[in-house]
Amino acid sequence: MRDKVNIAGVQMEPIIFEKEGNVAKMLAALRTAAGQGAQLIVFPEAALTGYCFTSLEEAVPLTETVPGPGTQRLAAACGELGVYAVFGLLEKDGDRYYNAVALLGPEGFVGKYRKIHLPYLGIDRFLDWGDQPPEVFQTGIGRIGINICYDVTFPETARVMALQGAEIVALSTNWPEGRENAAKYLINARALENRVNYIAVDRVGQERGGRFIGRSKIVDLLGNTLAEAGPTEEEIIYANVYPAAASQKRSIFIPDEFENHIFADRRPELYGAVTEPCNSAKIRGTRSWR
Amino acid sequence: MRDKVNIAGVQMEPIIFEKEGNVAKMLAALRTAAGQGAQLIVFPEAALTGYCFTSLEEAVPLTETVPGPGTQRLAAACGELGVYAVFGLLEKDGDRYYNAVALLGPEGFVGKYRKIHLPYLGIDRFLDWGDQPPEVFQTGIGRIGINICYDVTFPETARVMALQGAEIVALSTNWPEGRENAAKYLINARALENRVNYIAVDRVGQERGGRFIGRSKIVDLLGNTLAEAGPTEEEIIYANVYPAAASQKRSIFIPDEFENHIFADRRPELYGAVTEPCNSAKIRGTRSWR
Repeated sequence: MRDKVNIAGVQMEPIIFEKEGNVAKMLAALRTAAGQGAQLIVFPEAALTGYCFTSLEEAVPLTETVPGPGTQRLAAACGELGVYAVFGLLEKDGDRYYNAVALLGPEGFVGKYRKIHLPYLGIDRFLDWGDQPPEVFQTGIGRIGINICYDVTFPETARVMALQGAEIVALSTNWPEGRENAAKYLINARALENRVNYIAVDRVGQERGGRFIGRSKIVDLLGNTLAEAGPTEEEIIYANVYPAAASQKRSIFIPDEFENHIFADRRPELYGAVTEPCNSAKIRGTRSWR
Repeated sequence: MRDKVNIAGVQMEPIIFEKEGNVAKMLAALRTAAGQGAQLIVFPEAALTGYCFTSLEEAVPLTETVPGPGTQRLAAACGELGVYAVFGLLEKDGDRYYNAVALLGPEGFVGKYRKIHLPYLGIDRFLDWGDQPPEVFQTGIGRIGINICYDVTFPETARVMALQGAEIVALSTNWPEGRENAAKYLINARALENRVNYIAVDRVGQERGGRFIGRSKIVDLLGNTLAEAGPTEEEIIYANVYPAAASQKRSIFIPDEFENHIFADRRPELYGAVTEPCNSAKIRGTRSWR
């Protein structure tokens, strides 16, 4: 049985270059949230390293393999506390570098996701694009999918995971100023349109002149906001979600009209342009830095 | 030049079976909105007929061809007033019946859309599924795409139209109680994720014991709500939108970071499951009434 799961979002301010300090802060928050009963604890994007690097060279010393030293330290704590954790870091894999998120659990390293939508911002300008479709991870508390920041702008990302059976989507993000509407509307929309539980965890504070907007949020599978953080302070938000209920895609907004099914009612035979590759690849090729 | 376009949403209460009265009300609203300077005037789903039919037979006498008598009367008014109009009706085409929306303009009948996502509700239970991808119509005020009600739950619908160049999406809807989060979150999300202007026009009032929730809304291409109607009263909402700006998909939320492009940054090569047909068609086949 995995009925009710308590999930937590650690809205924090990572300090750029201060990996050791960031890990210490994350370990402390992990203990706090676990102490409050959280079973899944989500951290922001690039929580280990910071984000606003001005070159790849500057960031390379902070990158690491996944799994690797950072994930091992956090996984050890997850093992001790019996919790799952999701957090962002910069991954090194040979001569390639990714904006990645690791999923850890009581059993150790569970999996990772490499950001597939890269904005022309911060360290993302210099990284490699993730080249795998978003994966869904089977865990002891449900099936978890991971997104990073800009991914949420693209409805296809959560969709692909929901179609693969995701019950909880965790978004680690670093939303800069101007992305208030992403926090306000997109999180609830992704939950509602896919009937998944959604947790978005942002950072706060300034980094090299850029301000991040907080507003971390936990949304239930009908799109209702269960918990929401403020725009500036470090804080941990908590909510109970029901992962198994996400596998029920029949409409439940009108109890006696139960034959609607938000996946069966899809018309993929009419969505051709959504996966049409040419235009997109062509425009992407015009980026001056590619 | 088609810089600024004033658009209007006529939130009204159609009366079931009272086609003549509904047309008269629509013609009056068309004149009122045109008098206020509106260039595109959007009405709810099934505005001509009502929605809560309990059999196809009951609705058949209210169906008509498109174009046909209802569209001709409204098109004549559009011609006289020099405006575009979007409204919902029940279409008869031989022995097939559709939940349709017609687009009319100063030049007469422009085009139509047949709902491709049918909920198990009202007349939709008995209709044929639209079998054409959503089309985008080139008009004198911009490129217009049309959706109906439940379509908005599926992010693919607006996406397909935006990828075809839609600048304004008009949603004619009949949202029953329970769909408040669609009004609250999905409209803004569709606009923001596709960078299109979005107008959603709902009905109000009760019909055969079912209540509809109003909350018609006009949203700009960054997801900001420009105008919003209340939950119970008939009213007309207005806002200015900028259709041509929707063709600019580069990110504008951070002025000096202009290389983001929300279409070029898509990764359709990783969205395979979004158009995978089997599962969906299979589940759909289980509907007892098919």
